[in-house]
Amino acid sequence: MVKLNSFSLTALLLMFFVANVYAQQKKPLHFTQAHTLTITGKAWDSQPFYHRLDTARYAGLSSTLKRLATHSAGLAISFKTNSTTISARWQTSPQRSSDNMTGIAYEGLDLYILRDGRWQYAGVARPSAHDTSETSIVENMVHGEKTCLLFLPTYDETLFLEIGIDADATIKANPNPFRKNILIYGSSIVQGASASRPGLAYPAKLSRQTGYHFINMGFSGNAKMETTVAEMIAPLPMDAFILDCVPNPSPEEILERTANMVKTIRRYHPEAPIIAIQSVAREKGNFDQQIAQRVKLKDQYFRQEIKKLQRDDPHLYLIEADGLLGTDQEGTTDGIHPNDLGFERMLQEIRPAILAIFAKYEI
Amino acid sequence: MVKLNSFSLTALLLMFFVANVYAQQKKPLHFTQAHTLTITGKAWDSQPFYHRLDTARYAGLSSTLKRLATHSAGLAISFKTNSTTISARWQTSPQRSSDNMTGIAYEGLDLYILRDGRWQYAGVARPSAHDTSETSIVENMVHGEKTCLLFLPTYDETLFLEIGIDADATIKANPNPFRKNILIYGSSIVQGASASRPGLAYPAKLSRQTGYHFINMGFSGNAKMETTVAEMIAPLPMDAFILDCVPNPSPEEILERTANMVKTIRRYHPEAPIIAIQSVAREKGNFDQQIAQRVKLKDQYFRQEIKKLQRDDPHLYLIEADGLLGTDQEGTTDGIHPNDLGFERMLQEIRPAILAIFAKYEI
Repeated sequence: MVKLNSFSLTALLLMFFVANVYAQQKKPLHFTQAHTLTITGKAWDSQPFYHRLDTARYAGLSSTLKRLATHSAGLAISFKTNSTTISARWQTSPQRSSDNMTGIAYEGLDLYILRDGRWQYAGVARPSAHDTSETSIVENMVHGEKTCLLFLPTYDETLFLEIGIDADATIKANPNPFRKNILIYGSSIVQGASASRPGLAYPAKLSRQTGYHFINMGFSGNAKMETTVAEMIAPLPMDAFILDCVPNPSPEEILERTANMVKTIRRYHPEAPIIAIQSVAREKGNFDQQIAQRVKLKDQYFRQEIKKLQRDDPHLYLIEADGLLGTDQEGTTDGIHPNDLGFERMLQEIRPAILAIFAKYEI
Repeated sequence: MVKLNSFSLTALLLMFFVANVYAQQKKPLHFTQAHTLTITGKAWDSQPFYHRLDTARYAGLSSTLKRLATHSAGLAISFKTNSTTISARWQTSPQRSSDNMTGIAYEGLDLYILRDGRWQYAGVARPSAHDTSETSIVENMVHGEKTCLLFLPTYDETLFLEIGIDADATIKANPNPFRKNILIYGSSIVQGASASRPGLAYPAKLSRQTGYHFINMGFSGNAKMETTVAEMIAPLPMDAFILDCVPNPSPEEILERTANMVKTIRRYHPEAPIIAIQSVAREKGNFDQQIAQRVKLKDQYFRQEIKKLQRDDPHLYLIEADGLLGTDQEGTTDGIHPNDLGFERMLQEIRPAILAIFAKYEI
């Protein structure tokens, strides 16, 4: 027989009371599989739903690039709901965040809602220590329809995702709110390191700020302009291409591969603007002379190659990187990857440059 | 007998070759215990060396506050060296980073070197998955003396720290480079969440930018203006106090405790400026009406209390928080904690306000 003294009994009653209050406060939710809604940020409508590319179609791709293509960087779920609460239940791989990123950016979710014609931050879903997380993103909203965009993890594979709403509310797919297709090919910086949440990766910021559909083709540590990658990217149905791929290749690889990269794209897109950007990843060279020299050499080689190509290619542009992160050296997390301050400074410069080019092409 | 085929033999020879090249490249280092150098960012010269406070002296402090006081937020090692390489070997607690911070900020190190009269970023020490890490911070620097400041983990206890330099180089303590003493009492935002590296926590940025010695008394989630805390902080030998402590207390606690906090400090410092700042932690209330209302109420109560006290206190100032993080809602990591963009925007506003007040007092 279980004996309860008065203290245990009080504790037990208190537990029931607390559980009851909790149940009353937490409204029951209705969960919807996100793959029944719209996904944005993909180059085209491929499977698996949460992968950036269907890597099965690219036999020549290295296993590392295939793995990186499974990361949901830049992907977002587009939907409308009249719910006052939005929750998420999702699963990523067992891998944990890198030390130069937050867990939220690496494997969390980031919600924006359209208000007054602007995508405004509504909440993040913070990952738990387990592979499967369930958490509220935002609560206590006004009634009425909201147009939502939920950005997915930048550095992990999203295995499944369910969006929770009030039991009496509705949710439905919303078309991709962004127009045209602009592919950004690049390194970890494009993929999202070190933005503090998924929607602050710079392609995602650009999409929300400009209304264009920027496609995140950032491959952390592996944007080396290989021929297989050039052949993979070039035929995609894009209106413009941005090449932000100086950080990963060696100086020699830049000399050897830049022309092939540009010319391969040009074969499929005779008149689409191709915008090449030098490397912003240079603060590790503030005091390290070898790194400073190497970054300088790579930028110089890239500039030289682009300038050479520009002689025969009126639709190829170059954005030089000097001062893109500001002058106080506080715009990176680790001397390589821009933090949110660095990304915002970079966009203050490159956004008008990109938009001015698009204007010429009626993009 | 071990048999080697030609492939294994080649592999073995290659391994020896690689190991040899590696050994030649890696110069031997000489490690120095950081506690033999100068520590900055402490309210006074207390033990243990890497704790912000000697909590044994404050019997009334809660165990949570005692634990938070062991975190090395805002502490930095001040030294000079003529080494061309700087490395670190350090140990923190077994705890891992929170999902709204980077591992670097949470338990890593962040080095600045004085050049052209400015503290410039030199490198971070990225923590390993183990409690003890050893890594290079910066290499290949020019010869000659460097004046260095190495910021310690913001959210973990630093158990030991050794600084590695070239075997033929020297290292010595450098005096605290910052003047006067200004205590900032506050929440996780003061402690450093969510700056991307330790030196980007806002009190550390303020010190480097202004030359004043800002003392980080941020207590994550626990800056509630308790009487024990007021009594602990008030007697400290400070030239000014900043109270950035609206985020953690309830609205009622703000009403009940603000006057006591200010008056307790005033008993020990009759004419020191006390600068009260409203809460910047409000973007979680962009769409959540309950949170928006609660933050507004807390800011309103704090303002009301400060305004009341100002009638009899000419040395009490208020900085209101509207727009401190900008208007695009991209200045936080999670709706509460500023990211590096938010911190920089906040400092653009509060730094001149603080400096204008200091100027009146010849601080």
